[in-house]
Amino acid sequence: MSELTIKDIARLCGVGVSTVSRALNNHPDINPETKSRVLKVIKEYDFVPNNSARNLKRTESDRIAVLIKGIANPLFGGMIKVIEEETQREKYSLELKHVEYNEDEVEVAIEMVKEKRLKGIIFLGGYFLHSEERIHKLTVPYIFSTIGTAVPEHISPALYSSVSVDDRRESYLMTAYLLQQGHRNIAILSAETEINSIGQLRLEGYTQALKEKGIPVNENLIRRVEDDVEHYSMENGYLTTRSLLASGEPFTAIFATADILAVGACRALVEAGVRIPEDVSVTGFDGIDMAEYYNPSITTMKQPVKDMAKTTARLLFDMIAGRKGYEHILFSAELAVRESSGPAKGLGESKQLPAGKKG
Amino acid sequence: MSELTIKDIARLCGVGVSTVSRALNNHPDINPETKSRVLKVIKEYDFVPNNSARNLKRTESDRIAVLIKGIANPLFGGMIKVIEEETQREKYSLELKHVEYNEDEVEVAIEMVKEKRLKGIIFLGGYFLHSEERIHKLTVPYIFSTIGTAVPEHISPALYSSVSVDDRRESYLMTAYLLQQGHRNIAILSAETEINSIGQLRLEGYTQALKEKGIPVNENLIRRVEDDVEHYSMENGYLTTRSLLASGEPFTAIFATADILAVGACRALVEAGVRIPEDVSVTGFDGIDMAEYYNPSITTMKQPVKDMAKTTARLLFDMIAGRKGYEHILFSAELAVRESSGPAKGLGESKQLPAGKKG
Repeated sequence: MSELTIKDIARLCGVGVSTVSRALNNHPDINPETKSRVLKVIKEYDFVPNNSARNLKRTESDRIAVLIKGIANPLFGGMIKVIEEETQREKYSLELKHVEYNEDEVEVAIEMVKEKRLKGIIFLGGYFLHSEERIHKLTVPYIFSTIGTAVPEHISPALYSSVSVDDRRESYLMTAYLLQQGHRNIAILSAETEINSIGQLRLEGYTQALKEKGIPVNENLIRRVEDDVEHYSMENGYLTTRSLLASGEPFTAIFATADILAVGACRALVEAGVRIPEDVSVTGFDGIDMAEYYNPSITTMKQPVKDMAKTTARLLFDMIAGRKGYEHILFSAELAVRESSGPAKGLGESKQLPAGKKG
Repeated sequence: MSELTIKDIARLCGVGVSTVSRALNNHPDINPETKSRVLKVIKEYDFVPNNSARNLKRTESDRIAVLIKGIANPLFGGMIKVIEEETQREKYSLELKHVEYNEDEVEVAIEMVKEKRLKGIIFLGGYFLHSEERIHKLTVPYIFSTIGTAVPEHISPALYSSVSVDDRRESYLMTAYLLQQGHRNIAILSAETEINSIGQLRLEGYTQALKEKGIPVNENLIRRVEDDVEHYSMENGYLTTRSLLASGEPFTAIFATADILAVGACRALVEAGVRIPEDVSVTGFDGIDMAEYYNPSITTMKQPVKDMAKTTARLLFDMIAGRKGYEHILFSAELAVRESSGPAKGLGESKQLPAGKKG
């Protein structure tokens, strides 16, 4: 009987597939007698609904898409999981689409809307330089969501929704924490600082904190990651930190603007015989698992990823249903102080930094 | 002129969209004169083709799908990237579909083939208990691919393609390496040991190596990960190692059957004041970046992920084109000996293992 489908059950009961679906899903819009009849047949034939069958009711048009830039980003896996759960609850089907870094995600979205008659779109990752004109071509609700996404300030807020943390402010707070620990020579590992990118916003938070404290910004401590290596990667955090060490510029702390960079930074320091945090403090940003399980565990600014993902999905459904218009929701990140950071050493000591053991 | 599309260019040149596409893609099947005329117009109008435009030629039926179980698996990000590159080169469009652990991926695939008229399917992750009868319903070429996939031995090899490493053999070799280092009490962190799963195959390799060496298998050292926590996760490696430490069972090495578990294992050991590798050696499996950048860097069995992904994509295209039938391609993994493993301590010492500092 394993081959029985929901359609067979519908035929056996003399009802439509959608009625069987409603019975299975405990939907209120079903006559109680019909429901009990359907459930009786289901039991009699030992019918095990699987997700696909349960979703037969879905039509092509009950579909939303998540466009992802940076599928290897460990933050996105968890977000997608939550978005999928919410999507299933609302009986939408979900399409994941990986967008290459050099692809224009809005263009991709416009094509997808045409081809697949999407009901809504979530953009995960990437940064946004799209013109209002282009954005206007997106004829369904969409959200520039959360992690890795700057709020596109050049577009009227009335034209789009966003769910994110305040990257500039949280980065300011992380830098302020390091300053409070006595650090003055704070290197920053910075990536993708194009206008309106999170890279830029996080860099701005850093410079703002230094300026408020009256500390001149030392350009030699602003280390941009290698352009020809994947920007947000352990490898790039490692390479950039090696070049920082080789430069001979003194520093007592590294603020890596992403945890994945911080992991690479720690590895480079460890290999160079630099003790963390005794010689150099390292802090990250994002709150991925890896930062917590690293040795030493890495101080970070934790984004509330699951809440942000859930809010994103729900806002999209509300927009699709016409219950809400464009909204901008800011979450607060949380400073998680861990083993990798502590008080700065005396200035004299900091100049004794080994330049790196490994060639 | 940014709004000019490939269709406009085709109109301006008096040719079809496919001809413009061929000119853009340097395709050999185009009259050289036509090509230069098209390219001239493109230059004249400053037309910048984007990927979507370049792909307009694609029809819905030139589509393949990748069904992913375990989207958070850091191995899959890199594989998807390679598969996408190959897919674009062959002018297919690609659909990614995340399948939940409790979903039947073949059922999902059967639905997708109907709905989207897919040309081929790649299954990434998961294990396969599908009946031949069910498999027969898949009417397009498909590959049970690579990482995280056991070759389904209960299905005739004539019915499917596979690309993978020999999980049993590579796991045997990793255990043999630890034995050679003098370890006798080797704990294994094991996950998802359902029949034909990679978890089972890797466990079998371990027990086989011990038996050949005449070492009795100690069931207390076979530690199955927590069932209610994501199976392959740092958290589960951490929790399982904590419970191993708490058990008081002596051991001088941990073979974690996935790098992501090994990271958690290392963290638990570090917190318990156990030195790696002086007190306990740790080895993983897979070869994810994290193992390389961890402190200490983690000895692992590296799967040639990129080659496997490329081979998978190309085999699928060959199958779709009828150039190849079902094939089974085995890759060799590579033992990467790193900081986390070394010679076993004397047996007397190993009994002095601290039971864990942290409660």
